[in-house]
Amino acid sequence: MKTNRQWRLAARPQGIVRNSDFQWREEAVPALADGQVLVRNIYLSLDPANRVWMNDADSYMPKLPLDAVMRGGGIGVVEESKNPKFAVGDIVQGLLNWQEFVVGSGSDLTKLPKLPGVPLTAFMGLLGHIGLTAYFGLLDVGQPKAGETLVVSTAAGAVGSLTGQIGKIKGMHVVGLTGSDEKCKWIKEELGYDAAINYKKENIHTALKQHCPKGIDVYFDNVGGEILEAALNLVNVHARIVMCGAIAQYNADQPAPGPRNLAVMIMKRVRMEGFIVTDFMNRAGEATLELVQWMKQGKLKYRVDVVEGLEQAPTALRKLYDGSNNGKLLVKIGPEPGEEKAQHAAK
Amino acid sequence: MKTNRQWRLAARPQGIVRNSDFQWREEAVPALADGQVLVRNIYLSLDPANRVWMNDADSYMPKLPLDAVMRGGGIGVVEESKNPKFAVGDIVQGLLNWQEFVVGSGSDLTKLPKLPGVPLTAFMGLLGHIGLTAYFGLLDVGQPKAGETLVVSTAAGAVGSLTGQIGKIKGMHVVGLTGSDEKCKWIKEELGYDAAINYKKENIHTALKQHCPKGIDVYFDNVGGEILEAALNLVNVHARIVMCGAIAQYNADQPAPGPRNLAVMIMKRVRMEGFIVTDFMNRAGEATLELVQWMKQGKLKYRVDVVEGLEQAPTALRKLYDGSNNGKLLVKIGPEPGEEKAQHAAK
Repeated sequence: MKTNRQWRLAARPQGIVRNSDFQWREEAVPALADGQVLVRNIYLSLDPANRVWMNDADSYMPKLPLDAVMRGGGIGVVEESKNPKFAVGDIVQGLLNWQEFVVGSGSDLTKLPKLPGVPLTAFMGLLGHIGLTAYFGLLDVGQPKAGETLVVSTAAGAVGSLTGQIGKIKGMHVVGLTGSDEKCKWIKEELGYDAAINYKKENIHTALKQHCPKGIDVYFDNVGGEILEAALNLVNVHARIVMCGAIAQYNADQPAPGPRNLAVMIMKRVRMEGFIVTDFMNRAGEATLELVQWMKQGKLKYRVDVVEGLEQAPTALRKLYDGSNNGKLLVKIGPEPGEEKAQHAAK
Repeated sequence: MKTNRQWRLAARPQGIVRNSDFQWREEAVPALADGQVLVRNIYLSLDPANRVWMNDADSYMPKLPLDAVMRGGGIGVVEESKNPKFAVGDIVQGLLNWQEFVVGSGSDLTKLPKLPGVPLTAFMGLLGHIGLTAYFGLLDVGQPKAGETLVVSTAAGAVGSLTGQIGKIKGMHVVGLTGSDEKCKWIKEELGYDAAINYKKENIHTALKQHCPKGIDVYFDNVGGEILEAALNLVNVHARIVMCGAIAQYNADQPAPGPRNLAVMIMKRVRMEGFIVTDFMNRAGEATLELVQWMKQGKLKYRVDVVEGLEQAPTALRKLYDGSNNGKLLVKIGPEPGEEKAQHAAK
């Protein structure tokens, strides 16, 4: 009988997540009933939403109960199936959670297509929620027009880096804020941002004003707080603010006050809109086709930051908040099917 | 030669407007050149926008220069015309400013239709910017649906009182906040609000929660600040926040921090949108027809608070901020054409 190694929610975090908020558990994998599948997890996706789900409050999903296996998206491979919809070897994606194996009906899992030249990790970034968030957030909520100015707050992050590049594809003047000179260099030289601001070193308002000489038409907000206030000071008439996340606030026990200048939104007729990508999932197909095409044309680059081992998941989650991750943050739980064979062959 | 009595902008106000921010001036009315009209002002409209225009900053209109005649909307009667588009006796509306007479081309003036049973003051409220603001703000920006819950922040004010009634016409559950028991009584008993909250006496959050058992779908925000934060705590998924004004902030030298809970907008996919009625003026006709119809059906009630005498304008303006006005605030500068004849006849 297989052993399922897991991380369970041990405590509601106060501020930044600590390893003691999780508990390591090992338990037997149950035998399959009719209609069930056994999935072995390969990649676990770490996202700001993880932190939200740990709070003692419902969000767009119900809060996670204490002692439950930590919630998280993942990609895995079907190892056994008593469900005619799944065959052994199928690659699936869904809320596989922080564990090595999942047994269930598979009703909430998506079978991933085999796309030549597209690595499995792309489904966690470019072709997963990350890519769809950038795509629908910018194009549907932001309604960009060629020649307009786009500001992206976490410009080197998983969503932000794709958002900025899609902005360039759409002919915008794109300005990004990020937290290190290395990331500034990367988004300008590799991703094609027109300007990059190191928000830890520069005066945000002065730098934004300098790099947005025509004002701001779309602000893609991942952080809220001070950068939102600075952006509001520069918005043009009928500007759009896409509220994609508020990472600065997820950890805050005492949320920071909002921007003092919200009234600007009246004078400038600004629309500020929160969105969650799951509302757009019925249109994921069209977006995926376009994203793959852009990727193959070399117009969309992305990075994944793969941390090895399920044991590292709690520690790795903190990388989202100290900005030390380079690209979409993943935990690799086990080998991809091809790698497994390669390992066996090597033995 | 006629004398033109005027209020001019003497100083940029700090906080609440003071009488010393204005200077009284009397000067001769110039003779008409070809193409010009002479308008005698009858009603001056006092609005939160007056205060905005006095600041040393452009808004949706350029800031008013010091020593200029104070800017303001008004209704007047054409007394002389060398412009074939206007006849003596025409009633006109536009930025007539804080003075007794206006000489100009008339290009920015609108001739008012004579509508049987509709008093002239209705064009300042129900059929003016006030009514159109409530109409387009609620219906176009707010996108209300029958059965949804609407919260109106300055529920007994000029715009708010119409907004709440239009909400009822559209089948909504309507909750209003206002600053006195008398106003609470008026909006419930006369205007048909489902519930009224005296924000000066009650705990705003507790009272809103009690009166919005199904959450808030549309929040029509005239104030920003604390009430906005309380409303955000109760918004439903896909709620709309109509930012119609931020009267609490117009006077503030040091604007108050914004709501601490803006991140709610992401989880609940909330749209917050600022608007200014002038963007909708090309559709004023359709709105006016519907507003007149509702008024004649007794479904829309409104009050005007008429202060007598141009001299009183600076003092009267403060009524907007201490909440002592009862309905749309007007200054009567001179008699309506009919009243003039009546006065002459009485002599």
